[in-house]
Amino acid sequence: MTEGNGSGDLSCPLPVDATDTVQLAHGGGGRKMTQLLESIVLATFDDPELNRRHDGAVVDLDGPLAFTTDSYVVRPLFFPGGDIGSLAVNGTVNDLAMCGALPICLSVGLILEEGLPLETLRRVAVSMRDAAAKAGVRLVTGDTKVVDRGKADGLFVNTSGIGRIVAAARIGPEAVRAGDAIILSGDIGRHGTAVMAAREAFGFEPAIESDCAPVHGPVSAMIEAGIEIRCLRDLTRGGLASALVEIAETAKRGLAIDETLVPVDAPVSAACDLLGLDPLHVANEGRFVAFVPPQDASRALALMRSFGVSRDAAVIGQVLDGPPGEVRCRGQLGIDRIVDMLSGEQLPRIC
Amino acid sequence: MTEGNGSGDLSCPLPVDATDTVQLAHGGGGRKMTQLLESIVLATFDDPELNRRHDGAVVDLDGPLAFTTDSYVVRPLFFPGGDIGSLAVNGTVNDLAMCGALPICLSVGLILEEGLPLETLRRVAVSMRDAAAKAGVRLVTGDTKVVDRGKADGLFVNTSGIGRIVAAARIGPEAVRAGDAIILSGDIGRHGTAVMAAREAFGFEPAIESDCAPVHGPVSAMIEAGIEIRCLRDLTRGGLASALVEIAETAKRGLAIDETLVPVDAPVSAACDLLGLDPLHVANEGRFVAFVPPQDASRALALMRSFGVSRDAAVIGQVLDGPPGEVRCRGQLGIDRIVDMLSGEQLPRIC
Repeated sequence: MTEGNGSGDLSCPLPVDATDTVQLAHGGGGRKMTQLLESIVLATFDDPELNRRHDGAVVDLDGPLAFTTDSYVVRPLFFPGGDIGSLAVNGTVNDLAMCGALPICLSVGLILEEGLPLETLRRVAVSMRDAAAKAGVRLVTGDTKVVDRGKADGLFVNTSGIGRIVAAARIGPEAVRAGDAIILSGDIGRHGTAVMAAREAFGFEPAIESDCAPVHGPVSAMIEAGIEIRCLRDLTRGGLASALVEIAETAKRGLAIDETLVPVDAPVSAACDLLGLDPLHVANEGRFVAFVPPQDASRALALMRSFGVSRDAAVIGQVLDGPPGEVRCRGQLGIDRIVDMLSGEQLPRIC
Repeated sequence: MTEGNGSGDLSCPLPVDATDTVQLAHGGGGRKMTQLLESIVLATFDDPELNRRHDGAVVDLDGPLAFTTDSYVVRPLFFPGGDIGSLAVNGTVNDLAMCGALPICLSVGLILEEGLPLETLRRVAVSMRDAAAKAGVRLVTGDTKVVDRGKADGLFVNTSGIGRIVAAARIGPEAVRAGDAIILSGDIGRHGTAVMAAREAFGFEPAIESDCAPVHGPVSAMIEAGIEIRCLRDLTRGGLASALVEIAETAKRGLAIDETLVPVDAPVSAACDLLGLDPLHVANEGRFVAFVPPQDASRALALMRSFGVSRDAAVIGQVLDGPPGEVRCRGQLGIDRIVDMLSGEQLPRIC
């Protein structure tokens, strides 16, 4: 077994030529595959559990766990503020945080298209390693498959994750009560518009950067402070609107928010106008909503604002008794509208 | 939230027309996506944890865990003896078993190509549900992404899994000792030849059936019986040869096996001859090797033979002091050859 060298640089035991690409043979379970894993995947992630190269990882954990999975098919692979690698790590870290869990370890499943430059794979692997280090999670087990040219789109990533539940009570829509405050962790719409701009080469100046980031810091802090978090949801596909509608439907409550309290950066707002998008429906990758009892709202807000990733947190609305599943949004002119999920696809392959 | 109906049949709250296909909008996080999930995924799997539709599952487990992931890109999606769904469940169940763990729960990550018939998706989902029920594991969390036409190949599946470690000692190549018996759980080469025959429409009569099956039964029984299992490895990509070479290299031992003791069914042997394949290199999805101390070998063998999935188990060789990494195989004529991994790709997209 070759141990990865794993230092902070990009060196690896088997040098990768800039023109080398993924071949079908890299997926065959033989020598070529071993070389690919040793030269890029194991060398980059360098986790002792991963280096054992067994069929799975052993994790020592007590008590209830959170378990989550996500596949990432974002196009393009690299965009301002992130790439498919950091997205895959942060997205799964955030899903664990939304369960009230401290993220512990992730798995990495790679589906590679024949012909993918190995240098691209290495950049993504390094990005995953760095994002994992920043979020304090380990990449402990993995799998790599190769499909023939034209049967995938460069690179798809799956990350699954395990976290240790630290919340005292179960967090989820079913815990939401009338009167709960709805706190949004920051400005919305940056991830979706950043990816769309990169894909279409719109060249907004300055470039809009994705908000891709791990959010477990403020979540853990709120739990440690004894704040009774009723529900958490990160605002990925479908954006703030879909998250709120889903929670309202599952909780069988009504929600009321004030759109003028929802922060949207001016460049994002301009880009959304141009692209015909409603920021409420645009995907984010480092934003979430927290539902907390009214008496905990100001303390929760102060705690969230003490973290960089949620420094612009704001109370944007509250939970009503009914009507069940209805999300009401008061706009600039004081007129209410009903917010719904989109029926169709606004921005395909945003995550 | 719509609860899946989840009875044993194929009915679902939103009827699926045989001509309906996956659209990009099914991946958008909006209404269409909710409908797809409710009508097929949640309705089929019907796990209370999955039905909560939160960002992850909560799993109550004590002590050390095994954690594993695998993506499945097999082509064609359906083949004699299995399909991508049963393969994905059994493959991950088996990886957990190879860690000496009792499989507890799985995640399901789906990447769908626009245009995939929904009926195909439903067949695969039903197959996953049935395989999970048979193996006694729950499908507790999931994710679905859709990519545009031509950017995937119908359907890719990722399953990650968590198991509870039941083995007293750590199982893995590093525990292998000289003198250990190498037990093979059954005949080899069926999965790879079955998939290849289905792909190329060879029409062998009778059709060779994949050996796809969960193998945690005999593994758990051996652990419960106090057999000191040194190492376990399932014989997927790269087959028996790759598994043995990888173990020999990691354990820094030599291995000696007798090819005449390795069961290969006559139709598989004939198909391998025809296709120019060496059965030692062909993938299996319900076969494994167990390394046990010599004094435990006959008891381990008897236990394995008491399970249908490993009824043809056989001791095929033993561990030598050296040379490190060398796998020696005695053939029909009593002549030894050195077994190595393949360098290239023998059967692409076999799992």
